[in-house]
Amino acid sequence: MQRIPTKELKEHLDERIKIAGWIHGLRQLSKVNFLLLRDATGFAQVVVDSKPQMQMLSKLHMESVVEVEGKVVAEKNAPGGFEIHAPEIRVVSEVKDVVPFPINKATLNVNLDTFLDYAAYGLRHPEKRAIFKIEAEIMRGFRNHLNDQGFTEIATPKIVASATESGANVFALNYFDGKAYLAQSPQFYKQMMVAVFERVYEVAPVFRAEPHSTSRHLNEYVSMDVELGFVEDHTTVMEVLTVLVRAILTQIETFAAPELKALKVAMPLAPEKFPAISFREGQKLIAERYGEDCSHEPDLSPQHERWLGEWAREVHQSDYVFVTGFPMSKRPFYTHPDPNDPDYANGFDLLFRGMELVTGGQRLHLYEDYLEVLKARNLSPEPFQGYLDAFRFGMPPHGGFAIGLERFVTQLLGLQNVREATLFPRDINRLTP
Amino acid sequence: MQRIPTKELKEHLDERIKIAGWIHGLRQLSKVNFLLLRDATGFAQVVVDSKPQMQMLSKLHMESVVEVEGKVVAEKNAPGGFEIHAPEIRVVSEVKDVVPFPINKATLNVNLDTFLDYAAYGLRHPEKRAIFKIEAEIMRGFRNHLNDQGFTEIATPKIVASATESGANVFALNYFDGKAYLAQSPQFYKQMMVAVFERVYEVAPVFRAEPHSTSRHLNEYVSMDVELGFVEDHTTVMEVLTVLVRAILTQIETFAAPELKALKVAMPLAPEKFPAISFREGQKLIAERYGEDCSHEPDLSPQHERWLGEWAREVHQSDYVFVTGFPMSKRPFYTHPDPNDPDYANGFDLLFRGMELVTGGQRLHLYEDYLEVLKARNLSPEPFQGYLDAFRFGMPPHGGFAIGLERFVTQLLGLQNVREATLFPRDINRLTP
Repeated sequence: MQRIPTKELKEHLDERIKIAGWIHGLRQLSKVNFLLLRDATGFAQVVVDSKPQMQMLSKLHMESVVEVEGKVVAEKNAPGGFEIHAPEIRVVSEVKDVVPFPINKATLNVNLDTFLDYAAYGLRHPEKRAIFKIEAEIMRGFRNHLNDQGFTEIATPKIVASATESGANVFALNYFDGKAYLAQSPQFYKQMMVAVFERVYEVAPVFRAEPHSTSRHLNEYVSMDVELGFVEDHTTVMEVLTVLVRAILTQIETFAAPELKALKVAMPLAPEKFPAISFREGQKLIAERYGEDCSHEPDLSPQHERWLGEWAREVHQSDYVFVTGFPMSKRPFYTHPDPNDPDYANGFDLLFRGMELVTGGQRLHLYEDYLEVLKARNLSPEPFQGYLDAFRFGMPPHGGFAIGLERFVTQLLGLQNVREATLFPRDINRLTP
Repeated sequence: MQRIPTKELKEHLDERIKIAGWIHGLRQLSKVNFLLLRDATGFAQVVVDSKPQMQMLSKLHMESVVEVEGKVVAEKNAPGGFEIHAPEIRVVSEVKDVVPFPINKATLNVNLDTFLDYAAYGLRHPEKRAIFKIEAEIMRGFRNHLNDQGFTEIATPKIVASATESGANVFALNYFDGKAYLAQSPQFYKQMMVAVFERVYEVAPVFRAEPHSTSRHLNEYVSMDVELGFVEDHTTVMEVLTVLVRAILTQIETFAAPELKALKVAMPLAPEKFPAISFREGQKLIAERYGEDCSHEPDLSPQHERWLGEWAREVHQSDYVFVTGFPMSKRPFYTHPDPNDPDYANGFDLLFRGMELVTGGQRLHLYEDYLEVLKARNLSPEPFQGYLDAFRFGMPPHGGFAIGLERFVTQLLGLQNVREATLFPRDINRLTP
């Protein structure tokens, strides 16, 4: 007999069917046992009233894998409204150890480190599964929308020759007889590919050797990167990003509705045009509205971001807000300055509920400009030559951005720690499982 | 005026429009110049007959980026059937160097190393662009089909704690004060995730420190990984793979038809059921049909694979052929043996036109079995504990496979070297660009 998923029980009322899955719960009454079987699609309650079967079940630990053949009966008190009666039960994989913590309560009650130590087990909790189902839909929504907009997916190397982009916080690698590094972003490659496809994207891991452990940072995360040519300036990029974010939210609402409901997610306010404020206006607003003078600082702190997020929600009914025009001094060398105000960048951060979710902007596109900024930063052009060739042989004005996948999920679901949105997180203290 | 892509010229006959792109060619006659402009969607011929414009053009190198406003005129001899007349030309990015080799001939005539050195430039050649457009459609077809089949995308770490899977050919990394390694595959993680989603996939880079340089190998490549639970045995996995490969081919035919045509690709023979031959039958067949006795060898050589591919095509009209039942000794520790013949594996390779494209099979799913095989191989279970927990806490029979993206493209297009199907290849001699 072919196994059916538990979500299809309703289509088989009064038929004998086969289901299979994990023992999620077992309620043992004197004359009857209620076995709760979990599969990837939901739950089924199995009514067991034969002595030998009850004895067999009493020896099995939670999470044992079983196959059950039985009859589907309507029962309004059962989870999903159906029960399996007159079951035959076959043990597929017997669990012989006691589980490290229960995953058959509505909410997991275990500290994050213990949870992560037992991720292979703990991720089975339906709430955890829901988080990563939503994450999958975010990636899918990202790609689907960009495909529709004429973007082409690219795959660029993660092993690179030099610690080029920022110099700091890069993982070094033994590469045969030499040294190599792990890419901090696909920045150079996606720019190069603008001259091939004009509009490109990549969803891939990036690596940051940041030697600190915060609830916002990971040493490896998934970056959803976009780059496009023939832009007017960074505002073209902001428009593309706005439409993309809204498309991703629609994707989740359409394809992860049960998961959003299970996690009680309040969908973000995402108006057709996200509010935008310049870095300097933002600093003024913080001074006026929150009484902190940060006008001497070259960047926004997490608290500043939270305040701007609060302002955007209250005044503009938006959980997303662009901050534009950051000082050039804090931006990477390929950043295009504002032509009218060259100490400030034609770039932006997009804050989502008061946390930086996206960084983007217009890039330099003229070869001479690259030679100049490298010189100004005392960097030799030599290690950049393969990249600089893109500009030497003609590049249009272009720009792009990178969305941190795990941060998107963290902010969307209101999680406390970005590790909760990462299947197997990597940080300074954690390399396993 | 809003720029239009060159492929839309036909919708604007007799209108004044704006296009933008790279100078792909310039034919200079005494009274008129024909400027061939390339963008990501195709070409447009611009007729230039003003003296100052011809003088300006004569100073520009190929690949300079220009914007052209002009009138769309039907001209059957022009590429695409249209020309731009009465143009205004604005130089966006002037190229001041001579290009390293021409990319405006139908076929690139440059050796692979030179091409790769100048990838940022050479990849602009329309034939190169076509290769990577097809590659993008393969990834898209892979994901779309699996999404439709109830698979969920996962993102698993590429930095791992131990050189576990095979021990050999792994890149070591300085991870803060300790050591780490680059994942050779997402094998352990995708298995763990079977207990969460039952059916999972991942498209991501994998890293192999193979210290040799062949036309078939890369040190970093894109692996399209699949794993699914509740399989009968490896034949369930083979069925899933067969349908997937056929879906990917349909995707390419539907969405990359112009590129397939431009590259003169003969689409593969892919019958509804791919022929399958066991390893031992395959060795016998090679002896009978090709006269080489390889019955003492524990694996197939590239020549053996080519012979089996030839046989499958001639006898079964298929460019794909499964080889099943490899000796256990050459397979990784998590491989499930054939219950009736335990020296041989419940696994397979899928050959595509005589080259291994996919490796897959059924995995062990019982905790005791894992402890036993690790012991038999003198491996301590300790570094595997986070992985073994998946089995300790109940796993169903499961299996999966991994498709090498660049190999798929190489075989599909009949390329000589897998590097031609890789944007920025990494090998023992190449880390740039």
